Formats: sequence, structure tokens, C-alpha cells
Amino acid sequence: MSDQKLKPRLPRGLVDRGPAEIAATRRMLEKIQAVYERYGFEPVETPAIEFTDALGKFLPDQDRPNEGVFSFQDDDEQWLSLRYDLTAPLARYVAENFDALPKPYRSYRAGYVFRNEKPGPGRFRQFMQFDADTVGSATMAADAEICMMAADTMEALGIPRGSYVVKVNNRKVLDGLLESIKLTGPDNELKRLTVLRAMDKFDRLGRGGVQQLLGEGRKDESGDFTRGAGLNAAAIETVLSVFANVPASENKLAHIQARLKDSETGQRGLQELEEIWSLVNASGYGDGRVVIDPSVVRGLEYYTGPVYEIELTFQVQGGQDGTPRFGSVGGGGRYDGLVSRFRPEPVPATGFSIGVSRLQAALSYLGKLESTADLGPVVVTVLDRARIADYQRFVARLRADGIRAELYLGSGKMAAQFKYADRRNSPCVIIQGSDEQQRGEVQIKDLIEGARAAGAIASNQQWRESRPAQFAVPEASLVEAVREILARHGAR
Amino acid sequence: MSDQKLKPRLPRGLVDRGPAEIAATRRMLEKIQAVYERYGFEPVETPAIEFTDALGKFLPDQDRPNEGVFSFQDDDEQWLSLRYDLTAPLARYVAENFDALPKPYRSYRAGYVFRNEKPGPGRFRQFMQFDADTVGSATMAADAEICMMAADTMEALGIPRGSYVVKVNNRKVLDGLLESIKLTGPDNELKRLTVLRAMDKFDRLGRGGVQQLLGEGRKDESGDFTRGAGLNAAAIETVLSVFANVPASENKLAHIQARLKDSETGQRGLQELEEIWSLVNASGYGDGRVVIDPSVVRGLEYYTGPVYEIELTFQVQGGQDGTPRFGSVGGGGRYDGLVSRFRPEPVPATGFSIGVSRLQAALSYLGKLESTADLGPVVVTVLDRARIADYQRFVARLRADGIRAELYLGSGKMAAQFKYADRRNSPCVIIQGSDEQQRGEVQIKDLIEGARAAGAIASNQQWRESRPAQFAVPEASLVEAVREILARHGAR
Repeated sequence: MSDQKLKPRLPRGLVDRGPAEIAATRRMLEKIQAVYERYGFEPVETPAIEFTDALGKFLPDQDRPNEGVFSFQDDDEQWLSLRYDLTAPLARYVAENFDALPKPYRSYRAGYVFRNEKPGPGRFRQFMQFDADTVGSATMAADAEICMMAADTMEALGIPRGSYVVKVNNRKVLDGLLESIKLTGPDNELKRLTVLRAMDKFDRLGRGGVQQLLGEGRKDESGDFTRGAGLNAAAIETVLSVFANVPASENKLAHIQARLKDSETGQRGLQELEEIWSLVNASGYGDGRVVIDPSVVRGLEYYTGPVYEIELTFQVQGGQDGTPRFGSVGGGGRYDGLVSRFRPEPVPATGFSIGVSRLQAALSYLGKLESTADLGPVVVTVLDRARIADYQRFVARLRADGIRAELYLGSGKMAAQFKYADRRNSPCVIIQGSDEQQRGEVQIKDLIEGARAAGAIASNQQWRESRPAQFAVPEASLVEAVREILARHGAR
Repeated sequence: MSDQKLKPRLPRGLVDRGPAEIAATRRMLEKIQAVYERYGFEPVETPAIEFTDALGKFLPDQDRPNEGVFSFQDDDEQWLSLRYDLTAPLARYVAENFDALPKPYRSYRAGYVFRNEKPGPGRFRQFMQFDADTVGSATMAADAEICMMAADTMEALGIPRGSYVVKVNNRKVLDGLLESIKLTGPDNELKRLTVLRAMDKFDRLGRGGVQQLLGEGRKDESGDFTRGAGLNAAAIETVLSVFANVPASENKLAHIQARLKDSETGQRGLQELEEIWSLVNASGYGDGRVVIDPSVVRGLEYYTGPVYEIELTFQVQGGQDGTPRFGSVGGGGRYDGLVSRFRPEPVPATGFSIGVSRLQAALSYLGKLESTADLGPVVVTVLDRARIADYQRFVARLRADGIRAELYLGSGKMAAQFKYADRRNSPCVIIQGSDEQQRGEVQIKDLIEGARAAGAIASNQQWRESRPAQFAVPEASLVEAVREILARHGAR
């Protein structure tokens, strides 16, 4: 081993997670899972690695994988990649097991995904998603169901009604809008992307910012200029109409109806939206839990019909970029083309994804992840190293009774052992010196009671004399006495 | 989209997992976790990706990572790797958070690890490990504790006492053995490895096979010849003495004591073994749950003292290679050098790892993973597509009452819908045609009762007339009636 020590560190954008965070995630996932199970969805799990081409992540016209994904070649020189979402692997899975799966196939899965991108605040290179998808159903009832499930999920997590909203739009409505301002044909593809990207920034930039990006362009605070889509004033007005502050979902539909009357695609999209809206309404979710919002863009990739977004609407102190709302914690849409990449027949599919870390941050902000701080294990101290086997026996007895307990395994003296127990949040420590041993007793010190009492004690001498919250019990009563202390402090 | 369809497939050595397997793993992990928690261990999670050098997986004297690990460069051209076990990342984690962690630090973690190796039967390129480690304790009590915890874990999983054994050895005992046959110094390094590798094959090849590998070499069934270590007869006898069929752990210690009397390292190892044995015994685990076995080698990598192996000892029908026992499901040992790669001070550590898939296979073989096959969701059929919103309302009512329920989302006719419900293992389906609607009723068909009755019915006509297990209830009683059916079939 060289003298030059390695630096222990993680690559940027990757994080370790400790007990409190792990426990909170676990509780969260269980609640989400319970809702999905209730809706008849079943779990499935795919590996973290897939063939790069199965993920559709080769650079166009190149033999090299997309830069955004982590890719490597195996010993057969085949390109493999770490999954960057849970949708592409699901499409591969469904295509591969098409005949064996019930159709429509409802499934859910939670797992880590990986992005080979510049990390930043809140942007990680490994993060968890929780997805639910219905494959093999073309009906809008599948999309409506997912929106309602998203709403139920938010409430199961403790987010009060009114503090979240599931917004629904349809990609065909957006396409229709672009059609009605004559942005059609392959020549206008880049322009169309620029318009959608501009719309997607409404939450952050507001009406004025989007207006600039739809027109000549926009200079940000740092002075950087982003070129706009170069639309004329009338076209800009048409695009901005989807952001109009029209209150009810029905009115929103009517409001954009006018702008879409010349576009067949737009009309189809509108009809799909109306269908979803009628189903959502019939089940009572039209009360503000699920709303129609023609301004939702939801990424630019593979969506072909309905798109949805789960937004948390409560105010946050010091939110990023001054946004007063927490914002999106998930979303999804219909991706009818993704499974068909592998299959001869059309395979309609729709689904959504929850950003677990982001949602966890929100729940933590709302105080919904708190749990009675679990007490640590009982610590059996080692006063006499020669008698470690005896101490070990005390530990074994406590554990056999289901009590979290450990033997102090370090090399420190009693003061260090007490400090360790404090750090572990132990309810009590067990001590046995030779006097106690001769009397067949053990000393138990209640650390929580002791800490309370310590506040009330004036001098060191008084402390030593009173030995607060420390008492002796016969060895045979050890388990019982510890149980009493645990009960006193409300341990599980 | 091109006409040439992609083939949906996974790279070799990677697998998808369905609901039954996922549920079984979940139950298993929960039981293991409960034991570890009881021992005072706390969870920690590290990411799947680490710096390659932090994993210690660069090829010796090269700037290229080891072939056995999946490695890639990020946009800063730094080498990253997927973790190939959970021990190296823990060492990095502890070193990075050294001052903040309680010491000794007991932790556990389950997660996927990745190997860039040729997959084979039972050998995967992604698989799950469940580890527990104690870092910062040099005492043998830490090792003894891990062995007892391993035993408790097996029993918590339902493996009966006597069907498993935790075998303990010490790397220093093996080193002492090599010393006593004069295999010392750097020149003999390869020979030492050959001897240890030969010993490690005892379970598979038996005494005769190992004897050949310690001597001139061995020709296997296929005719391939493996060159041996070239030891003389006396040295071979000494090495083989550790496999002697000596019954009790105490006697095993005495038996090898004689062979190690000239080796200081061997004596130290023996003393450590005795210490573990006395602790294990004092806690009552010396009854066959934990045994001393000087033949355990447990890999060749980083262990510096005690090594342990969890073996399942029950007989298996048609076991691999004719072995009558299930074999190893996990193990570990003391690795005092691993954290010290990053730190100036020595950091002793010991821990063990359970191969989750292998253990799951064993539990499944023992019938310990069975659960009452969960009933699928109630399926609300779609008899009249125009009335889908009404049907959706039935579903919503069932779900609101906590009943797993779904609307049929496919395009099939009633026969297909019933088939779908069967495939989903539904307890019952809900049907409402115009007649029922007018009467304010729904039809409920109990699919389980129906299947039973079907066996007893002779003709198609009789079938149609009797409509087995199908009945009408008022709409308002839907939830109640479904609850009754679920209760009848013992659903959760």
C-alpha cells in the first residue's frame, strides 16, 4: 500500500443516503405502491443496463451513443447503456413478453435512472423514478385513470386537496395550434421546437418572457441572448392564448376550440381532452384535482396524445428563481410509438413518472415525512474487557426478546462508551462491574431521563451523588427493566 | 420509423423480474432487515457509480480499469465504474464521513452490484447483495456478533436450525499453514494462490481432487489439465489436515494447533479463532449454529483475519455437479486494510454479504416464500362503450373503499373481457347492461365460485340457464356485495 492515500469522494451528481432519508423514502414508496396496487397495477422490474439501441439512444446517423447516457461496450463489443428513464425499458419488456402479458397491461416500478449530464443544484446523475403505465389500451379512459391515480397518490402521501393539481393537455392540441399558425412541414421543424420550448418556460419566465422567445428573442439577466422563433404578432397572440387566465376546465376547452377550428389534428386533440374531462368529472375528480390546461408541454420527446403534469401549488419560502409554487413533481403522457419500435402491430401506451427525490423534498417541506425519531439500540457497556462474553450474553438476551441492542465494540473507556451511546440515541446503557456481578445485578442508566435530570442539577458533586436515572436490577430482570424504560419513552 | 423492427431483448446475464419474484424478495429483505436492526445496525445507501480508483479496480500498472468491472469516462474524462460489490463503496463512504459517524459504525445495505463477466447458469451481470458491516472495531467480538447475526437471519427466514451452519476460519491460520510448509516469500506467491484455490474447491472436487491440485495437477472430465501446486507428500498431508473429519469445533482447534506450532501468524490466527469461539459459545450459538472450520478459504482478495461462510446443509434433489448440499449463500470476513486505503489511521472492519438471489432460490426450494396467491383486482366490464363514464364510477367507488379494482381498458368484446379477468386472477367481474341499468342494478359474477361450479355442469345449455355464481344487486350495494365475495375467498 502506498503512502499516497486515495481521496475518498464521489463523482459530482451522485449522493449517499443515510438512515433518516432511507426510511422516509421507504415510507413514501410504500404509500405510492398501495395506491397503484388498488388501481390494479402490478410490479415489474427491469435491470439498470440495456442494449443502447433498445433505449433508442444512438446519436442520429452515428454509431455512437447519445452523450446524455452512460454507455460502455461489453466483451462482445456490443454497446450497453444505463437506463436514463423507466419508460424505454418498459417498452422493451412489453415487446419481449408481449404474448405472455395480460392486455391491457398495467404495471408500476420504482428504480434508479442515470443521466450523463452536468449536475447542478437539484440535478443528479443518479435519481429515482416511480412509474406507472398502461400498455395496450387506446382508450382515453386509460389516461383519465392515470390522472386520477396521480391525484389519489398525492393525497395518500398527505398532500391536502387544493395543494396539488394534475394538469392535462394533449400534444395534438399543441400540434393543431402550430398548424393554425402555419408552422407545418419539415422545414419548420426547428421553429416548432423553439415554440414548444418557449411555451415550456412559461412557469419560469412568465408571459413577457415567453412572448419575447416567440418573437425576436430574449436577453436574460446575465446578458445572454436566446434567439426567438420569429413569429409575427398575430401568431404570438394565438400561441399565448393557451395561457389565458380562463377559470374552469370547460371554459378552457371552449376558449381554445376557436383557435383550433381549422386544424384537424387540433380538433382530434380537443375531442380526446373532452373525453378525458368527462371521465374525470364522472368520477368526481373534476373538482380541481384534475384540470384541463392547454399550456402543458411536458418535454419534447415521444408523446403522441394526452400529456399530464402533477404540480404542487402551495407557496414556498425562498423558492428557486423566485417562483412562488413548488412546481412539478411528475408527469407523463401517451406514447403510442414506443413499443411499436419493436412490434409489427400498433401498441398504444400511456403512463406517468414521479420524480421521487423532488417529491420527497416537497413532502419534507410540508412536514409529512417526520416520524417519531426512532430510539437507537440499548448499549451494553464493557467495563472489564476480560468479561466480554458475559456482556455479550446480556446483549443476546435482549435481542432474543426483540429489543435492539448492541455490545460496545470500540476500544474506548467508560466515558467514550457513554458518548457513543448518546450518539446512537440509545434509550439506556447496561453496566456491570465486579460489585454488581457479585450481587448478581446489573446497573441500568436511563439516558433520556438522565439528560432531563442533568438540566436540573447544579454542581458536579451533586451529579455524582445523585446518579440520576441510574438503578440496579437483578440480572434475571434485565429484559423486563429495559422493556419498562422503552415503554416509558414510547419506543416502537 | 423504419420498417426494420428492433429486436426486443436484454444483454446476456441480465434479467427482468415479475410480481411474484418481486414480492418474495421484498418479504425476504424485510425479514433480514428486521434482524440487522435488532442488532443495532442502521441502513446506508451509496450510488451505483463510483470513481474507478475508489473501488481499487485499476489494472495493476495500467491506466485502464479491470476488465471485470463496467467502466466508462464522464465528460471530464474521469474513469467511473459500476460497483461490483457493496464493500468497496462502504469503505469509501466511511472514509469520507469518518468524523461524523459513530465509531464503531454498524451499518447494513442491500443493492444491486454489477460484474462485467461471462454470464452462465446462476451467474448474472447484475445481482443483489445484502451486506452488514462493523467498521472501527478491532475486537473479535465484532466478528462473533456478525456470525451470530448470520445465524439469526437464517432462522428469521424460516430455515430450520440444523439446516444451515455458519463456518468460521481465520486467514492467518491459512497463512500459518503455508508458512509451516515453507511456502513463504514473494517467490512463492503464485504457489500460495494455487494452494488456496485448490482448497477452495474441496466442496466440489472432494479430497482426491484437491490432493491432485496440491500435487502435480488434475485432469477433469473434459480432459482439460489443471497444473497443480507441486507440493511434496508431507506438505500435501499438512494442507489436507484442515479437512480432517474432526467433529467438534474445540477438537478442530486442537487438531490444527499441532500443525501451526512453528508459525507465529498461525498461532495468532488460532488465538483469534478461539476468542470468537468462546464468545459464540457464551451466547449459546456454539450448538452447531456457528462452527469452527479451518478449511474455509472464502475468496482470495482483501481478508486479513477471520473469514466466515453461511452454508445451507440440507440435501437438494439434482443439485449442481452432483453436490448433495445447497451450499454457500453468503459470507465475509475482516478487511482491516480497505478503509485505510483512504485514511492515515488504521481502520479495522469486518462484515458479511448475503447473495440475495441465491438465498431466494434456496428459500423457494424449501417452500418458505409461498404466499396465498393474492387475488387480482375486481374487473368492471365495458358492455356499452358509450357508458364508460358510468363504469368508471363503479371502479372509483370500489377503490375509494380500498378494494383493488379496474375498468377493462381493452377493445375486446365480453368474452375477451372475461378472459382478461381470468388472466388477472380476478375474484369477480361487474357487468351492467341496459336492463340492469333501468332496474338500478349491477350483475356480479364470482369467477372463483363460477370456475368451481363449471366443473359440475354437463352441457352448454345447462350452463347458460344456470348462470353459475352470477347474481344481481342494487347499485348502492355494489361495494358491500364485492366485499362479501372477497371475504369468501379469503382475500387480504
